[in-house]
Amino acid sequence: MIFNCLTIFPEMFSGFTGTSLCEKAISRALIEINTVNFRDYTEDKHNRVDAYPFGGGAGMLLMPQPLFSCFSALDERYAGKKTRSVYMSPAGRVLTQSKAAELAEYEVVNILCGHYEGVDQRVLDHLIDEEISIGDYVLTGGELPAMVLMDCIMRYVPGVLSNDESLSEESFSGGLLEYPQYTRPFSFQGMEVPEVLLSGHHKNIASWQREQALLKTLLCRPELLKDAELTGEDMKILERLKNKLDIPIEL
Amino acid sequence: MIFNCLTIFPEMFSGFTGTSLCEKAISRALIEINTVNFRDYTEDKHNRVDAYPFGGGAGMLLMPQPLFSCFSALDERYAGKKTRSVYMSPAGRVLTQSKAAELAEYEVVNILCGHYEGVDQRVLDHLIDEEISIGDYVLTGGELPAMVLMDCIMRYVPGVLSNDESLSEESFSGGLLEYPQYTRPFSFQGMEVPEVLLSGHHKNIASWQREQALLKTLLCRPELLKDAELTGEDMKILERLKNKLDIPIEL
Repeated sequence: MIFNCLTIFPEMFSGFTGTSLCEKAISRALIEINTVNFRDYTEDKHNRVDAYPFGGGAGMLLMPQPLFSCFSALDERYAGKKTRSVYMSPAGRVLTQSKAAELAEYEVVNILCGHYEGVDQRVLDHLIDEEISIGDYVLTGGELPAMVLMDCIMRYVPGVLSNDESLSEESFSGGLLEYPQYTRPFSFQGMEVPEVLLSGHHKNIASWQREQALLKTLLCRPELLKDAELTGEDMKILERLKNKLDIPIEL
Repeated sequence: MIFNCLTIFPEMFSGFTGTSLCEKAISRALIEINTVNFRDYTEDKHNRVDAYPFGGGAGMLLMPQPLFSCFSALDERYAGKKTRSVYMSPAGRVLTQSKAAELAEYEVVNILCGHYEGVDQRVLDHLIDEEISIGDYVLTGGELPAMVLMDCIMRYVPGVLSNDESLSEESFSGGLLEYPQYTRPFSFQGMEVPEVLLSGHHKNIASWQREQALLKTLLCRPELLKDAELTGEDMKILERLKNKLDIPIEL
């Protein structure tokens, strides 16, 4: 799978591409991440890529010419490949796991990283398939969102995650927050691990973990419960927790 | 304002801290970003920071000892400063602008970046003030979320944004998506800028922009409309757009 990040700050990506899972996926040739500086495509004699908006307004906009030339070069280079072009923008649909899974089906994903006030609408209308936001907050540019998007997508590329890691992802997609977890030492500065976890009694451990996951979700992110996969037993536990804690939440 | 990022991948931050707005804010001493490798604090003879969870389960957990030692060193170093410690986690509350503004009031923000399966619950109970998520999707570690959080927060630190940039942020907080924008040239490969933007008629331009912002929000993110600041005139425009486009949306 190939990612092309169109950016005027290619150096921002080095920490990401050189570390951890991403570095491994690249070195095993499972993914390829190219940064493309679209300033290299400008025909402006002062090397500019941005200009003031027509009709007034604060800030600068990315001009069409450098981006049309840059996308045209990419189209030629990856002709015939199943390609999707996205623009990272607070105006886009908010990223979800299912969107990441959907994008993982493409052979090439081009990611345009904006800066300044935004980009000329003709770019969005003619070069971009969809706008994606990573959340409802304002950031300086599209580079961090592009890295977040790639991290999320690459986890679906076969071979990138080990079996262990894949399993841990499954546990999130059940729709509940994770139960509290503990590791060594058993006692640390007087703080002890809950007894049940050392009992070796698998069924009791599983019930404790399920109840704790329900409790944590109820307390921290109750809105997730309506889409979670809940059994009849889960519903009983939730009723009990709600009565005990006196939480007036409709499920 | 001081950010301490607790991570075993400090090199991941270099692209972020060395570029664009962040680099400028650091060089003007408006913010300070320190990466703290908590592996340096482990007392494990093999230099480990993680171990298997009690009670079984896939993956590894960060152990309490290195993190308690690391936080203790930070507490000593920044004694007396107004400090908040956060853990980047999909189980946290989802980041919003108001959360970023709230965190910008602290003198020191410590950000723990997780990896592996998670962190020992005693760390969360005793060292962390709150868990923050940047969105409902799974990522490899807390480093990218930490950078997203810092980018979002630093924009509230006085002096980091120029007046122009501040203005553009205002436009987002009105609750609508931005209207389409256009810049030079007027005609590009046969694609022209809407006439009204070149009219010089400020009132017509403003109405066109408002209507386009309403249209874009209606089409792409209708759920934002219920919290947007809408005038009576806006409501009339929305009614008209809904009828014209035959969109069955309740506002």
